[in-house]
Formats: sequence, C-alpha cells, structure tokens
Amino acid sequence: MPHYTPPLRDMHFVLHELLKVTETLKTLPPHAEVDVETLNAVLEEGGKFASEVIAPLNQSGDAEGCALNRDTHEVTAPSGFKAAYATFVEGGWPSLGCDTAYGGQGLPVSLNQCLYEMLNSANQAWTMYPGLTHGAYECLHAHGTPEQRQTYLPRLTSGEWTGTMCLTEAHCGTDLGLLRTRALPGGDPSADGSFLITGNKIFISAGEHDLAANIVHLVLARLPDAPEGSKGISLFVVPKFLVNADGSLGARNAIVCSALEHKMGIHGNATCQMSLDGARGWLVGQPHKGLNAMFVMMNAARLGVGTQSLGLTEVAYQNAAAYAKERLQMRSLSGPKAPELAADPIIVHPDVRRMLLTARAYAEGGRALAVYTALLIDQELSSTDAAVKEDAADLVALLTPIVKAFLTDNAWISTSHCLQVFGGHGYIREWGMEQFVRDARINMIYEGTNTIQSLDLLGRKVLLDRGKKLKKLIVLIQQFIEKEGADTAMLEFINPLADLGEKASKLSTELGLKAFTNPDEVGAASVDYLRVIGHLVFAYFWARMARVAIDHRADDDPFYRAKLATARFYFAFLLPETAALIRSARGGARSLMSMDASLF
Amino acid sequence: MPHYTPPLRDMHFVLHELLKVTETLKTLPPHAEVDVETLNAVLEEGGKFASEVIAPLNQSGDAEGCALNRDTHEVTAPSGFKAAYATFVEGGWPSLGCDTAYGGQGLPVSLNQCLYEMLNSANQAWTMYPGLTHGAYECLHAHGTPEQRQTYLPRLTSGEWTGTMCLTEAHCGTDLGLLRTRALPGGDPSADGSFLITGNKIFISAGEHDLAANIVHLVLARLPDAPEGSKGISLFVVPKFLVNADGSLGARNAIVCSALEHKMGIHGNATCQMSLDGARGWLVGQPHKGLNAMFVMMNAARLGVGTQSLGLTEVAYQNAAAYAKERLQMRSLSGPKAPELAADPIIVHPDVRRMLLTARAYAEGGRALAVYTALLIDQELSSTDAAVKEDAADLVALLTPIVKAFLTDNAWISTSHCLQVFGGHGYIREWGMEQFVRDARINMIYEGTNTIQSLDLLGRKVLLDRGKKLKKLIVLIQQFIEKEGADTAMLEFINPLADLGEKASKLSTELGLKAFTNPDEVGAASVDYLRVIGHLVFAYFWARMARVAIDHRADDDPFYRAKLATARFYFAFLLPETAALIRSARGGARSLMSMDASLF
Repeated sequence: MPHYTPPLRDMHFVLHELLKVTETLKTLPPHAEVDVETLNAVLEEGGKFASEVIAPLNQSGDAEGCALNRDTHEVTAPSGFKAAYATFVEGGWPSLGCDTAYGGQGLPVSLNQCLYEMLNSANQAWTMYPGLTHGAYECLHAHGTPEQRQTYLPRLTSGEWTGTMCLTEAHCGTDLGLLRTRALPGGDPSADGSFLITGNKIFISAGEHDLAANIVHLVLARLPDAPEGSKGISLFVVPKFLVNADGSLGARNAIVCSALEHKMGIHGNATCQMSLDGARGWLVGQPHKGLNAMFVMMNAARLGVGTQSLGLTEVAYQNAAAYAKERLQMRSLSGPKAPELAADPIIVHPDVRRMLLTARAYAEGGRALAVYTALLIDQELSSTDAAVKEDAADLVALLTPIVKAFLTDNAWISTSHCLQVFGGHGYIREWGMEQFVRDARINMIYEGTNTIQSLDLLGRKVLLDRGKKLKKLIVLIQQFIEKEGADTAMLEFINPLADLGEKASKLSTELGLKAFTNPDEVGAASVDYLRVIGHLVFAYFWARMARVAIDHRADDDPFYRAKLATARFYFAFLLPETAALIRSARGGARSLMSMDASLF
Repeated sequence: MPHYTPPLRDMHFVLHELLKVTETLKTLPPHAEVDVETLNAVLEEGGKFASEVIAPLNQSGDAEGCALNRDTHEVTAPSGFKAAYATFVEGGWPSLGCDTAYGGQGLPVSLNQCLYEMLNSANQAWTMYPGLTHGAYECLHAHGTPEQRQTYLPRLTSGEWTGTMCLTEAHCGTDLGLLRTRALPGGDPSADGSFLITGNKIFISAGEHDLAANIVHLVLARLPDAPEGSKGISLFVVPKFLVNADGSLGARNAIVCSALEHKMGIHGNATCQMSLDGARGWLVGQPHKGLNAMFVMMNAARLGVGTQSLGLTEVAYQNAAAYAKERLQMRSLSGPKAPELAADPIIVHPDVRRMLLTARAYAEGGRALAVYTALLIDQELSSTDAAVKEDAADLVALLTPIVKAFLTDNAWISTSHCLQVFGGHGYIREWGMEQFVRDARINMIYEGTNTIQSLDLLGRKVLLDRGKKLKKLIVLIQQFIEKEGADTAMLEFINPLADLGEKASKLSTELGLKAFTNPDEVGAASVDYLRVIGHLVFAYFWARMARVAIDHRADDDPFYRAKLATARFYFAFLLPETAALIRSARGGARSLMSMDASLF
C-alpha cells in the first residue's frame, strides 16, 4: 500500500518563508489575528486526518468502488468512507474556510488550500465529497437569497449535508447552451416559490451516497420563457430531501441516481446519472443568469481540481522516491555506489533521478503557486484596499486556468514518471502507483477541459482585456528581476526567467495580432501558450524559492540544499520545454485547418 | 464499443509506394516470388480476422479478465479468446512468417509486421498470446539443438502450442544478473539430458491459459557452477507438458501458475507468477550464455512492443476522429460551420484537430518506420549480399530501441489525446478510450523500460561503436536531402530535416565527449537523445511520404492531400519538440546527481 507523509516542512516553507502569509493576512480584517502557530497547528492536525484516516482507504476504495441499489436508488460509498466522513465532520474540518456567520471558522483560503492538498494526496475520490460541498457552499453564499443561505449554509458548513453541481447532460458538457432540463412553475403546491424540474444529468460527482443526511444539488435548467443557448439557463437549488420550515428533513425529492458510471479511476467517488422527474427546486440568483452564478462555483472548483493533481503529484513522488532508495538493480554507470549490496539502489541512475525530480519540482512549484493563488483570493475577498482587491482579483482570474490546466497536465506527467520508477511493479495494482495515474487523468477533463482552460487564458484573460491582467503578472516578475539581478548568485535563475518573460510577452503580442485576422489562431496556439505562461510562473516561483534557499546557505540545512538542487533541476530540465512550446505555438491555424474534415 | 477499420490503404502506401517492398524482396531468395497481390490479399484477410474476430473481444476481455483456479493452477482466458485463437490457428496465421522447414509459410517479416499492427489495434491483450509464441519460435530457431527445433518449432509454427519468456523475478527485472532460479542436473531420470529447475518467476505474460494444448516456456536459470551475475545465466526450454518421443504430450511438468497479477490494463492477457519446483528443462544454447540467446527473442519482442503501441495509436485515432466528426459542441471561433445544426461538430476546433493530427502523424510515421525496420530484418535474414546484410543488421540494431521507446511514448501521448477528444466520455469505460490508454502504459515498461532502450541506443548503439551505425542512418538521410533539395516544393520539409540532422550529429558528438569524462552523462541525456533521433527518423519518413504525395498532386486524390497535410502538421507541431529535447539533453548529470539520495 502506498504511504503518505504530509509535507508539513515544505508547507511551512511556502507559507512562512516564501510568501510570509501572516504579513498579508494581518492586513485583512477577518484574518488579522491568525498567527503562524495557529496555521501550523491546523496543518498538523489536518495532516494526521489525511494520512491516518483517509489514506488507508484510498486503495481499498478504488478496488471496491461504489454500489447502486437499483430499487431504492441509494448509493453506498466504499467501506470506511462514511465513518471517515463522520470523523471529518466531528473534527470541524468542513467549516475551516467558511463564514463565521453560518458557523464557519473563517480561516483563510490559503490555509484551506494546504488542507485540501493533503486530503487529495491521501484520497482524491473521498475528498471529492467534501470538496464539491464547499463549491456548493460558495455558490449559495454568493448568490442565494437570505432564506436559502439560512436554510443551506449552516448544514453545508458543518458538513452535515453535502453538495453537488448538476450541469452536464449526455449531449452537452462544454457547451451548456445546449442543455434541455426544464423548470416549470410549480403550480398550486408552489406557494413555496418552487419550480418543478425535469431532465437527465450525467457525470454528477458525489450525486448520491450514504455519507450525509441530505445532498444539496445545484442544478442548471431552462425556464419556460428562456432564450435559446447559454443566455437561457437558470440555476436551482434542489435538495435530495426537502427541508421543512424548522430545518428538519421533509419528503424525498424527485431527483434520483439512475446509474453509476464505470470509470478509469476515482472509483471511490460516485459518478452518477441523475434523473429529475418534477423535482422541486428553487431559483438561485436571477432567471437566465444561471451560468454566471455557477461560475462562482466553477472557479473555486477549478482551483480545487488543480489541487487534486498537486496532491497526486506529491504522493506519487513520495512513494517513488522511497522505492528508488530501496530497490536494488544494476550498478551506477560511474562505478558501484553500494558495493556491499548485490546492486545499487536505483536512485543512483540519472534518469530515475530525473523522473523523481520532475515530480518533485512540479509538486513544490505547484504548491507555491496554489498557495499564492489562495492568498490572492483571501485578499480579493477581504482586503479593505480597493486597489489591492482589484489586483488580486485580476491575478486570480489569470492564474485560475493555469492552476487548473498546468498542474493537472504536470500531474499526468509526474504520476506516470513515478509509476515508471517502479518498472513492472508500477503497472500492477499492489503498489498503488497506477491508481494515481488513473485518478490523475480525470483532472485534465472535468470543470472545463484543459483546452477550455487554455482558451479562457489566452482568449478571455489575456487578449480580451488587451493584456492588462498579464501585465500585472509581468510587473511582479520584473520587480523581482530588478531586485535580484544584482546578486550574481541569483543570475543562473534570473537570466532564464528574464529571457522567458520577454519571449512570453512577445508571443502574447504576436498571437494577439494573428487572432485579429483569424480567431482560429487562438485555438491553434492556446494549449502551448498556457504551458508557456505556466512555466513563466513556475520559473518565477522557483527563482524566489532559490532566493530563500541561498539566504540559508550558511545553515547547512539539508532542506535548503534540496530546495536549491531542485530549483537548478527545474531550470536545466523542465523550463527548456518552453523552447518547443513557443515554436509550436507559432505552428499556426492553417496547418491544422487545411485538411477537410472528411479526410480525418 | 470502439470500432476498428484495418488501414489497408495506408499499408499499401507504405509497402508499395513509399518503400516499394517487392523491389527489395525480389533480391531475397526466399521472397523473390512475393508480389503485390499476394501481400495485399494476405493483409485484407488478416484485417478481416482482426476487425471481425478479435476486435469485438477487446472490451469484454478487459472487463472480464483472466481467472485462476487455485486448485488446478489452470487459467481461463476471457470468454471468446479460446475460440478466436482456434480460428487464428485454423487460418494458418501463426505460420505466416515462419520457416518453411517447420511448416511455416516463409512470408516476409515486413508482411507479418502489418498483420501484427492490425491484431494489436484490434486486441493487444489477445495478440500477446500468439505474439510471445513467435518470440519463443525465433529463440529456439536460432539457438535450439536440431532435436529441440524438431520437437518444438512445428507446433509453435502451427500455433498448436504457445510460448513464453520467463525472465523476471520479484527482486530482479532490468537486472537479470541477480536472478536466483536454479537448474540442477536431473540425476537418474535425466538420461534425457534434462535439468531440474526450481524458482519463482513473476510478470510472465501468457504464462498459463486455456488457448493451446501445451505451453513452451523459455526460462532463465543458474547452473550449479555458474559465475556470479549476468555471465552465469543459462536458458532452458521448459514445456508445460513433457513431450514424448513420438511428439505426443506426456506428464505435466512442475511449472505452474501460482497467482495472477492485477494490472492497470491488458486484463485479457494472463500475467502469471510462475512457480517451478524441479521442473524439467533442457539447456538451449551454451551454458551461462542464456542472456545472449534470450536477446534474440528480446529484440524481436522489442519491435513487437513498438507494434503494440502503433496498433493502439491507430485505433485510438480512428475512434477519436469519428467521434469528433459526430459530436456537436460549441461553434467554431471563426464562425458557424454547420449553422443548420444545434452546434458545430467538434472537429472544427483547432485544438481538437491538433490532438487528432498528433495521433495520426504518430500512427502513420510509426507505420512507415516499423515496416521499414521489418524490411531491413528481411534483408538481414535473407540477403545474399554480405554488405547489404551488414548494413541492414546495423540499422536494425540502431532502430530497434527507437521503435520500442519512441513508438510506445508516442502511443501514450496519442491515446491520452484521443481520450481527451471524448471529454468526460473518454474517461468512462463505455467508449473504450480509457482502455487504450491503460493498455498503452505497459508498453513503456516491458521488454526493457524505455530508459533501458535509451541507454541501449546512446550507450551501446551510438557511442560504443563510435557512431558507425548512426552514420549509416545519417548517410541515408543526406542522400535523400541531396536528391530532393533542388525541388522547391520539398524545401519546407528538407530544410528542417537537414537542420535536425546537423543538430543530432552535433549532439551525438557532444554527448560522446561528455560521457568520456563522466559516464553518468549518458544516463542524464539518453531519454531526450532517443526522442531526438526518433524525430529525426520520423522527419525523414514524413519528408519521404510528402515526396510521394507531392508526386500525386495532379491526381486530386484525397488520400495524398491528407498525407501532405499531415506531413505539414508533423513539421509545424511535433518536430519542434526537438528544440526542447536538445536543450534538456544538455542539462547535464550534475543537476541530477548533486542532490544527496537521503534528501529525496
């Protein structure tokens, strides 16, 4: 069975040494009192829950999967999931980042981010149950009526109830404008303002299960007078059990799980086909503005998906590194390193190290980026300075598709490398490595495929506002370069960072001009473009991390030596990918579009 | 369920238009009479078997898997596999490329290559049963005593019996020098010259099953007086049932399947733990020279693994392309392309095309390379001209690790892209796309991991003979460049090919010099290096294919238009990867080796 050790030391490094989060949190009224000790204490306890309670259920949950009772439409999660969830609720973990007005602990998003990384390292399938709940919480918090908030938020905060997003239908995923689920005014019994919703949804994660007393579905559907397409979609809250005025549970609502999907991975999470047959739902937000309301949830979910992959990258790395230090096979090409043993441990082989360091550099770089983005969200939500708030919001908008797509692509690369370190043992189920790969694959698809993320980045976030948001990122990087450029010890990082910054700016301008003449140029280049900007951000953070490590040169602390070595590895072996990306980003739409569809 | 259409048109293109195989075969006595019609007729029938008999069993075989009876140690393959194998044997397919002296049809390896591509597209797990048999056939053909050949080859040729390779043990895969299985002289009952073999093997593909009457295991073990390490390993033939003097089956031998592995994919193939408890075996080849003998089988197997991945790339492409033409989702960024429909088919989106064309360019380029390599093997085996034989052998030695590693890495990329084209539907089992990805993953591991392939290429095939083999490839490419460089229509292909050729030569020299001072430089760069040479070979074949397509400009045949468009795509979007590879190949051992193992 794979093991998992919460990377608390590296989290402390990111939170306190790299980002000095308490200095920022101090400026935010709700978090002004949060200190280093509190943050670290929460992380330590969260890490215990992750590694001791849910990590042991990851492999068994994958093997067992979820079960649907076709008569009752009830779904049973794998053994142990329900009890673990009860422990999670008892521990108050669902409420960590929730509003104190609804019983939450009001702790920063940047802390919650670290908690979720650990939960996902331990058990992605399990973590999706509370993860989606938090998305539903955020959506209702932002768009619900006062009554809806009062009805649902305290129970979502406590974790007593869980949540879902019901978007996809068989014929529409990316293109929600095509959706067919209908909402009709409820007629007589609708004195309560409810609508009767009918339709079929697919791919609903955590759509039905036995972990919680009630499930709060957020459902996209069309009102009778709805305009065609995506401008005619409304959002409804549809509880599994209706909620009485006193908050107690009432009748079972007409939304049921009609089938479970059989998937490549995340077997422990119930991916449901949901059938709504006149289910009672209440409008959330404005009629026909459902997509906007849902996007609040979606943006949080996108960061959540990036975090899933960050978690998988970390845990795959830990297991592969441990294996590489133990497994004896062949001698080092540069002479035996463990002559007393029958063979050297495979960590002596350069390519094994290369695979390991790839995963490590992506995990540590991803952690820095994800916590940084979460801290920006804390500022966006709570800063009292309008300019700070706006800058933070702009950077979050820019970084969200990068966290989602770059981190999930990197996890696909990393988990596959870590499997490879195990050789044939990586391919069999026993060691758990192939599960990380299977689980990682979904993250490139759901909550907007990585292609959609790249179009969001290049089309909307960069070109549509003429580079305003991108410029804010570039300025940050410039300031760092100017500050550090005088230190010769930093030049090995500063030079390639500056070089890439220039190339990325130039590429952005170039693509903007091309897009002007042919919008397909955006789609032809966007996936490469996102990885270029992803590397730019990683290069920035790896240079900053190297700075901190260099400052501790005198300590002879192995942690900083490893950090510096990993930074050097990143610049020597991973950053060069941008040379290829920039070229193929220039490949152009013509090479792609010239072939007639019939010839494929 | 996924569909599969044998790519006969493209095979005809590769065989007859690109490589003009009959012109070469004419010079080889055993194949002098083989004509285009014969080749095409065999391919058509082979394609029918693949698409009609075994393709329908691919998904069901994956879901059902193999079953071990723990009392009898018998393994049952998935439903339908046994009957399909009987049909295969009745059709005479196993004997296609086998020696006529043992009942084979003596047809060229280049034809067998195309057959196996189709079988693997249809059902990789099933195809491993006959595929491994052919490896055992080749090993006994090359190294068996006349008596062993007479005993085993006719039944392996007919397919009546199947074969295995029993190499791996729990503590050794790559490093066979560590293996512990022992062979003792058989004592009194050994008047037949047998040894008694005892030990445990793991990861034995097709180790036990119900498809054939007997299984011929080729087992690596140590003789009592064996030197330590890889120089003390001998090869034995160990039949499941002993064979009487008259060829009838005798007693059950003491080699049994003790457990089945639970794997990420290829569930339809029985991956067995084999337990030998004084099993009777006969020495094949010289004592202590078992690894050499096994390498005959291994080299064939490496090309076979590349072919597995070629098959998966093709079938994944076909299904993704069909889906992209049918699935309606969003409008083209450059304006609606199917305004009469609710949305455009997703093939209008540039990045969907990019994913599809990646798989297509890798499939078609891989086919050209694989058939070319197989034709070189035909020359190596049967040419009467010693110089031709030597050149062919050198090129086969050079290209084998490239076919194995480059094609399997490309299939991993391609099948994942093709899954992505399906969005969420790619992640669920129903459409069969995720199975292609799971099946493709093993090909990067077995028969020598892709890292081992890259060390074989750079360390042994290039540096150890001071570039002699590589130079033969470079000369071929140079000749083509010189011949075509005058045609301006070819410049778009010739220029980047020439450029890459120069860079690859320079990189080879550079790495040779670095390796001189530190052997770890080979391991640090070899994986990148293999992909650089892989792209060089692909660029050469894509340029040659473009040449043929351009020659048919006037035909207005859509086949050549598609070929030319795919060639352009390859040069614009895939070849640029070399820019990154060359840089990271220069990353150097220091960045990898400086971190102390304890810091991982």
